[in-house]
Amino acid sequence: MFRHVKELQFDARVSGPDPRFARLLLEQFGGGNGELKAAMQYFTQAFLCRHAFPEKYDLLMDIATEEFSHLEIVGATITMLLEGVNGELKNAAERSVLSNIMKTREERDELVHQAGTSPAFLVLSGGGPTVTNSEGVPWSGNYVNANGDLTVDLRSDIAAESRAKIVYEYLLQFTDDPHVQESLQFLMTREIAHMQMFTAAVDSIKENFPPGVLQGDPRFTHMYFNMSDGASARGPWNQGQGPWGSGEEWIYCEDPEDTVRESKGLVELPIKGSKHSEDEVRRKNAEMSNSRSQEIERVTSAGENAWSRYPQNTLEPPALKKAS
Amino acid sequence: MFRHVKELQFDARVSGPDPRFARLLLEQFGGGNGELKAAMQYFTQAFLCRHAFPEKYDLLMDIATEEFSHLEIVGATITMLLEGVNGELKNAAERSVLSNIMKTREERDELVHQAGTSPAFLVLSGGGPTVTNSEGVPWSGNYVNANGDLTVDLRSDIAAESRAKIVYEYLLQFTDDPHVQESLQFLMTREIAHMQMFTAAVDSIKENFPPGVLQGDPRFTHMYFNMSDGASARGPWNQGQGPWGSGEEWIYCEDPEDTVRESKGLVELPIKGSKHSEDEVRRKNAEMSNSRSQEIERVTSAGENAWSRYPQNTLEPPALKKAS
Amino acid sequence: MFRHVKELQFDARVSGPDPRFARLLLEQFGGGNGELKAAMQYFTQAFLCRHAFPEKYDLLMDIATEEFSHLEIVGATITMLLEGVNGELKNAAERSVLSNIMKTREERDELVHQAGTSPAFLVLSGGGPTVTNSEGVPWSGNYVNANGDLTVDLRSDIAAESRAKIVYEYLLQFTDDPHVQESLQFLMTREIAHMQMFTAAVDSIKENFPPGVLQGDPRFTHMYFNMSDGASARGPWNQGQGPWGSGEEWIYCEDPEDTVRESKGLVELPIKGSKHSEDEVRRKNAEMSNSRSQEIERVTSAGENAWSRYPQNTLEPPALKKAS
Amino acid sequence: MFRHVKELQFDARVSGPDPRFARLLLEQFGGGNGELKAAMQYFTQAFLCRHAFPEKYDLLMDIATEEFSHLEIVGATITMLLEGVNGELKNAAERSVLSNIMKTREERDELVHQAGTSPAFLVLSGGGPTVTNSEGVPWSGNYVNANGDLTVDLRSDIAAESRAKIVYEYLLQFTDDPHVQESLQFLMTREIAHMQMFTAAVDSIKENFPPGVLQGDPRFTHMYFNMSDGASARGPWNQGQGPWGSGEEWIYCEDPEDTVRESKGLVELPIKGSKHSEDEVRRKNAEMSNSRSQEIERVTSAGENAWSRYPQNTLEPPALKKAS
Amino acid sequence: MFRHVKELQFDARVSGPDPRFARLLLEQFGGGNGELKAAMQYFTQAFLCRHAFPEKYDLLMDIATEEFSHLEIVGATITMLLEGVNGELKNAAERSVLSNIMKTREERDELVHQAGTSPAFLVLSGGGPTVTNSEGVPWSGNYVNANGDLTVDLRSDIAAESRAKIVYEYLLQFTDDPHVQESLQFLMTREIAHMQMFTAAVDSIKENFPPGVLQGDPRFTHMYFNMSDGASARGPWNQGQGPWGSGEEWIYCEDPEDTVRESKGLVELPIKGSKHSEDEVRRKNAEMSNSRSQEIERVTSAGENAWSRYPQNTLEPPALKKAS
Amino acid sequence: MFRHVKELQFDARVSGPDPRFARLLLEQFGGGNGELKAAMQYFTQAFLCRHAFPEKYDLLMDIATEEFSHLEIVGATITMLLEGVNGELKNAAERSVLSNIMKTREERDELVHQAGTSPAFLVLSGGGPTVTNSEGVPWSGNYVNANGDLTVDLRSDIAAESRAKIVYEYLLQFTDDPHVQESLQFLMTREIAHMQMFTAAVDSIKENFPPGVLQGDPRFTHMYFNMSDGASARGPWNQGQGPWGSGEEWIYCEDPEDTVRESKGLVELPIKGSKHSEDEVRRKNAEMSNSRSQEIERVTSAGENAWSRYPQNTLEPPALKKAS
Repeated sequence: MFRHVKELQFDARVSGPDPRFARLLLEQFGGGNGELKAAMQYFTQAFLCRHAFPEKYDLLMDIATEEFSHLEIVGATITMLLEGVNGELKNAAERSVLSNIMKTREERDELVHQAGTSPAFLVLSGGGPTVTNSEGVPWSGNYVNANGDLTVDLRSDIAAESRAKIVYEYLLQFTDDPHVQESLQFLMTREIAHMQMFTAAVDSIKENFPPGVLQGDPRFTHMYFNMSDGASARGPWNQGQGPWGSGEEWIYCEDPEDTVRESKGLVELPIKGSKHSEDEVRRKNAEMSNSRSQEIERVTSAGENAWSRYPQNTLEPPALKKAS
Repeated sequence: MFRHVKELQFDARVSGPDPRFARLLLEQFGGGNGELKAAMQYFTQAFLCRHAFPEKYDLLMDIATEEFSHLEIVGATITMLLEGVNGELKNAAERSVLSNIMKTREERDELVHQAGTSPAFLVLSGGGPTVTNSEGVPWSGNYVNANGDLTVDLRSDIAAESRAKIVYEYLLQFTDDPHVQESLQFLMTREIAHMQMFTAAVDSIKENFPPGVLQGDPRFTHMYFNMSDGASARGPWNQGQGPWGSGEEWIYCEDPEDTVRESKGLVELPIKGSKHSEDEVRRKNAEMSNSRSQEIERVTSAGENAWSRYPQNTLEPPALKKAS
Repeated sequence: MFRHVKELQFDARVSGPDPRFARLLLEQFGGGNGELKAAMQYFTQAFLCRHAFPEKYDLLMDIATEEFSHLEIVGATITMLLEGVNGELKNAAERSVLSNIMKTREERDELVHQAGTSPAFLVLSGGGPTVTNSEGVPWSGNYVNANGDLTVDLRSDIAAESRAKIVYEYLLQFTDDPHVQESLQFLMTREIAHMQMFTAAVDSIKENFPPGVLQGDPRFTHMYFNMSDGASARGPWNQGQGPWGSGEEWIYCEDPEDTVRESKGLVELPIKGSKHSEDEVRRKNAEMSNSRSQEIERVTSAGENAWSRYPQNTLEPPALKKAS
Repeated sequence: MFRHVKELQFDARVSGPDPRFARLLLEQFGGGNGELKAAMQYFTQAFLCRHAFPEKYDLLMDIATEEFSHLEIVGATITMLLEGVNGELKNAAERSVLSNIMKTREERDELVHQAGTSPAFLVLSGGGPTVTNSEGVPWSGNYVNANGDLTVDLRSDIAAESRAKIVYEYLLQFTDDPHVQESLQFLMTREIAHMQMFTAAVDSIKENFPPGVLQGDPRFTHMYFNMSDGASARGPWNQGQGPWGSGEEWIYCEDPEDTVRESKGLVELPIKGSKHSEDEVRRKNAEMSNSRSQEIERVTSAGENAWSRYPQNTLEPPALKKAS
Repeated sequence: MFRHVKELQFDARVSGPDPRFARLLLEQFGGGNGELKAAMQYFTQAFLCRHAFPEKYDLLMDIATEEFSHLEIVGATITMLLEGVNGELKNAAERSVLSNIMKTREERDELVHQAGTSPAFLVLSGGGPTVTNSEGVPWSGNYVNANGDLTVDLRSDIAAESRAKIVYEYLLQFTDDPHVQESLQFLMTREIAHMQMFTAAVDSIKENFPPGVLQGDPRFTHMYFNMSDGASARGPWNQGQGPWGSGEEWIYCEDPEDTVRESKGLVELPIKGSKHSEDEVRRKNAEMSNSRSQEIERVTSAGENAWSRYPQNTLEPPALKKAS
Repeated sequence: MFRHVKELQFDARVSGPDPRFARLLLEQFGGGNGELKAAMQYFTQAFLCRHAFPEKYDLLMDIATEEFSHLEIVGATITMLLEGVNGELKNAAERSVLSNIMKTREERDELVHQAGTSPAFLVLSGGGPTVTNSEGVPWSGNYVNANGDLTVDLRSDIAAESRAKIVYEYLLQFTDDPHVQESLQFLMTREIAHMQMFTAAVDSIKENFPPGVLQGDPRFTHMYFNMSDGASARGPWNQGQGPWGSGEEWIYCEDPEDTVRESKGLVELPIKGSKHSEDEVRRKNAEMSNSRSQEIERVTSAGENAWSRYPQNTLEPPALKKAS
């Protein structure tokens, strides 16, 4: 259950209206890296953790709830940056009054132009936020990444926070308003904090690489295919040990066309670079499958199931009634 | 600011997994009439009320917050209906174990088929909800109607609740699970309650018809154009007084083609049916413009602006600093 | 079957080109509250009425057809507001001629800027309308609400007309052109007229509240949950009788968190506020189910079926051949 | 202006319900090659022809209107194929009655399954069509191609009819119902007829290749780049005269990588294959620019403009008042 | 397999930054008629040709690969037109330095305005291209037409090239930069060349009209329905022989309403205009079905299947192992 | 420039048709974590690296090109899994032949059902892949994350590979076909390899945390807000040093509501947990801004600009001509 508190988490203020910046700021209201995306991503990921990983559930719901609170800050700021539009639109008949404010066509055009890069503010939302990005593109459920595996989801979250951070960094360069800057600074900083939380969370999972359960096929894990002709660069991503374990190294395939033809479509490629045999991989896969499915199945009910205890004063899920 | 409470608003339970109903239920998670749509609609509408109409702001935020809480109930139910999928997917290597459960290709197909109408549960979300409707179409920001005028927004809300109600009514007919039925019953009932709240709210606005500020042109308000040939029906929507004021009535245009040609594209159409003259309309428009814009402009700041008081223990907006 | 008549329903004219207003006006061509949405909504709703509710079918098709006619007016106006763009683009080679009109880069930029807020007019549609809203977002089938129940659909239609009306009201404030204003005035007025038609139609349905067939659970219909902390407002939407029947009233739940915990997730909540017992609700549900399904099943054919009589000079559906 | 005629253009009938085929048929209601797309494409293209090319305007509006009439046939057929769903859903309370029809969970599942590949029919539209394709994806305004040039638009229309034809051809293979087959046969045939109309129309335009106004750069028109290695095919699309004028031929570039490097990114490529010099192209461009822009500018008004005459009993546009 | 070559196919250059034109040019990067659409359309169509029509496969992959190469040219040009934006954004803290460049709010606004019609360049992509059209609408998979029949697909391709050509023609009129003009000229010309290739390819298919396999119903192929009232035009698309065979002609239906009523919904319409009987059509359908399915089934494997030979030095598919 | 090589990078084979798995596999063709997304993401990110970070450009283009090659493998596999559909559809007339294969309605339904979960294969693509995910949702340009900063983009890439890996892991559990499993195994393994490459690449950037240029506000970086009531979990993400530098630690805010009210919306919050002062942050911001903008501006041209050298046999960009 959610509760709403009338105060904003951060004291959002503006020095005056600025319809054009309101439009840019929409990127963090209804955009692909914005607050709604973040909130919905962590909220959606949380469901599968509820019973099996209550600690991560608590983390994801804490941050999801904070992101909803940030969405409110962004929406409040946009609304204040558009201050005046709604009242003016209500004065619908008094074209004479309107003329007092905007005497010439140029002046009216100027208003259109000002906010006009977002016509939706003028003719659709009447001066409030829209659930779109700064281009007017509606928010999409496909912004949300939730894949049912914490070693994957938390990496998606680190990347999401990373993108949200850079968008605030860019936004900061398009406003002079010290109040708005302070709010953006707060919001940007929280993305950094969340990144650290998610990093700590993924690190707290033993054996988090590769993500998921299955290991890679050792014939293909250490190969680098030089797919682009001409001058090529070498670095820790395609030569030497790189991020691999000791005694392992990248295998640089200079001419993929030849390699593919000679190895009958790579099928006959020998293991190189990796120290792991196919047998080891199979064993590891079996072991991981076993332990990872156990974590979840221990709280899985094939029969009746409930979500919460009342009150929920422990992290444990409600007592399960296993189907007989 | 939002807070999350670990207990669900309603005690959602299931009698056992049912992946196929989980799919249907997605309609209320990420569908066009679902809980996320409702929550985001009222939340977005609330921004423009914050300072000028704090009573309506409170109403909209109460219901928005309840809808977020309902979204959680729906997501929790979907997750419980998919119980087992996630654990089984983690057992990734043990194809032998998998074989124990699903010995034949037919049995595996059966599972695919069961949930398979939503392949996303199997190969994308790993057994959790997706932010889509029951067809897999991602939630879209264009589901949200927020037009900066309470006489419009509250009507949008009545209709939205109406649609959410019928979708729950339909859903109720596709599950036998008494626990799920009870949760759906609760959720359906709350849509009815919200409809009543929004109806009371729109009725509390004086002069809420026509919505917005401007009156209609009396030449065109009372005309009914019989645009479809053949047998035609008559009723209170095109004959007699209908919903009009006393002394007024519908004018039925039997043959629009002739009327249009004769009246030079309706421009020369006389006022009929209505008792209002064009002058009256102009006067009314001026009056409404004045009163409606005043309501908003009395709390409008052309200068510095803030959203909240700390603490916000009154409905009033923070003290405004008018720009000099 | 549709026919097209070369004359517009209303004599749309412009005083001269205005590419920028053309862009704003797109909101009513391919936008979420525009004429195409309205036309397609009523047209789609009409199908299920064809046989069971031929009077409402006639109403919906009359208005759908009028909305298609309005779509044509809007498209014609946009085209005239862009007058000149298409011809100029055809003069593709004569950059010298182009230079005569726009001597400097600034002047060309000015044209880009003018219409440029909609680049699609320049580089995609070549000066005609696009099936998008004013932000360039393509029209979407999910704008259409058609839910197979007239008590719901007609409410969706009232709300849709309400939104279309306010968008025209906003648009009216961004053009000085008296011809365009007159067209917008006509179009806005017709939305008001349609609202009244739909209101009369929903009122002509006995027992139209709650929409659909099923009654609410009396434990939850009259509850108002105060989900947002801090100063709260009271009004007819959460206190007193409000819109309820005599002897009934709102129950205000001050602290939902406590209530939820104490009532075990509301499951143990007693009926309050409502005069209806659960038994009454069951009875009413059975009665409504019976009468509502009868209305439809009396014209339902499990066997061969046809849509029209030739000629269709009565409201009745074609004679049904029931499957034996 | 549009009129609606109660009779369908073709007498659509069904032999009985078939919810699964109803779903497939959605492809032609709200799909990318369906009737709504066709109708809206020709309707949108027509606007720019209204004054300058009234003959093509008449053609486009005739076919657009026919496509709207076909959309009605498709929607009517879908509704009849879903016959029974709506009535059953209204019987919402009588789960006992429902049990009579579908005694076991398997039977209910069967129904869900039948139509269930389109859950929207069950829980969203209540048994009517949805404005989506057969996968449930909402119709999109970006299906419509209208680019402000008849040599382009008519080619888009030929291709659109071609796609619509093949989709009907595929659909015909998934129904046994002779009535439905006959309707599909009619609709498929009309796409062929329209293809012929559009072919005749594009052929009636002098100098319709290349489409638009500008000629190609003769250095690049006749080159074929062999971009894919391994065995390569030769044919009239890359050798000999192909579709070119007499004395012209394709130039086959065997090794694009070398050619690009040697010609400094093709900039230094000589004219080959083509008989046209750059000068000729420039002259031709000037000539075409002049004639094509004249066609449009002769009816272009920089001042007041109207769309229709009342009555519109000639093909001519209304008399223009040129701005002084 | 693809390879990348560091050099661009054409030497794309710019004379200096022009953020506004960068935005317009997005139409050809991520727009509905742009290079990504073209590349993905031919690439997707190619799959079904791989084994049955290897010559057409080669053609489609050659052009698809060239279009990917053009996508790179367009992206490179956009990036160079935005030169400066990325570097400036990195100077995030030095608002003083920023002030040196843009001393006043007006100047900053000017930059926002310049590129600002595409806010995504500033706050989302940081000065690189976005996978959207010029309005900021994300590229959509539904731009791609691939219908599993070369007589259809190649017509879609001719139309697609036609649209791509006109968009380049329009774009050419909004830049003065001779380097950019030269690149656009190259890209536009290649669309013309591709059109010719596709035309030659469709002409190389015997019996390519009507597209697909089935013939039209001769009752409906030659009818022209005059669906729009008022002054009507006649031309080769609705009178005389038009594009039909000798001895055939268009049948002009002056009053479709009457015709429909009299022919019982066209069911009783006699064959007119066409020389073909229903029997002939049936025979032709059988013959075409047979030959068209044979072409494909001769290379169809019901059992094991492979895609490539290693090396693939012949056009033939790998040897098939028919399922026993 | 791209080249295509007729051989697939991996020898994709199937043991026989399986239309249902073909549908699931679409998730990696046109889905949000599929090969097209990956290819387009790295390709789009590469543009801004071309001149300033040629080593990363080479890495991104190598992997982008490999992902296009994987897209081809996935499309080829889908096509082979649908083997038979296209040929059968061509046999359009021979309903008698069709009857031989599928004698009863049940058998035809079975085919519809088999592939039918993706009706598009049957009635739209004719047995080839569609540019959609497994639910039929068209690929969207908003899947691509490219934000103009390598410290952000490479994190997006790690997460993207992580998601692609888990989707292959899930897919592997829904096919028994050893050939398909081997291809999926190859593709899954390459995602792991790419993850390692991107990890090495981000680690090779000095000072890659926080991503972008600006440091966080030390008042807010180390705060953890306990936004969800009830039992709460503690771990390295909200207590102790966690991922922070030595001497630093998380500050756990137990009751955010109180904290917010007391600190006037957090504005008056003191620095806690962090060792950094606001001055240090400012200094660091200035330093980072300087170094990061220098990296880019050293190769930035305000004047003429080119993309490639011919030949491009060094990593260096073409010689720049600075605007005077």
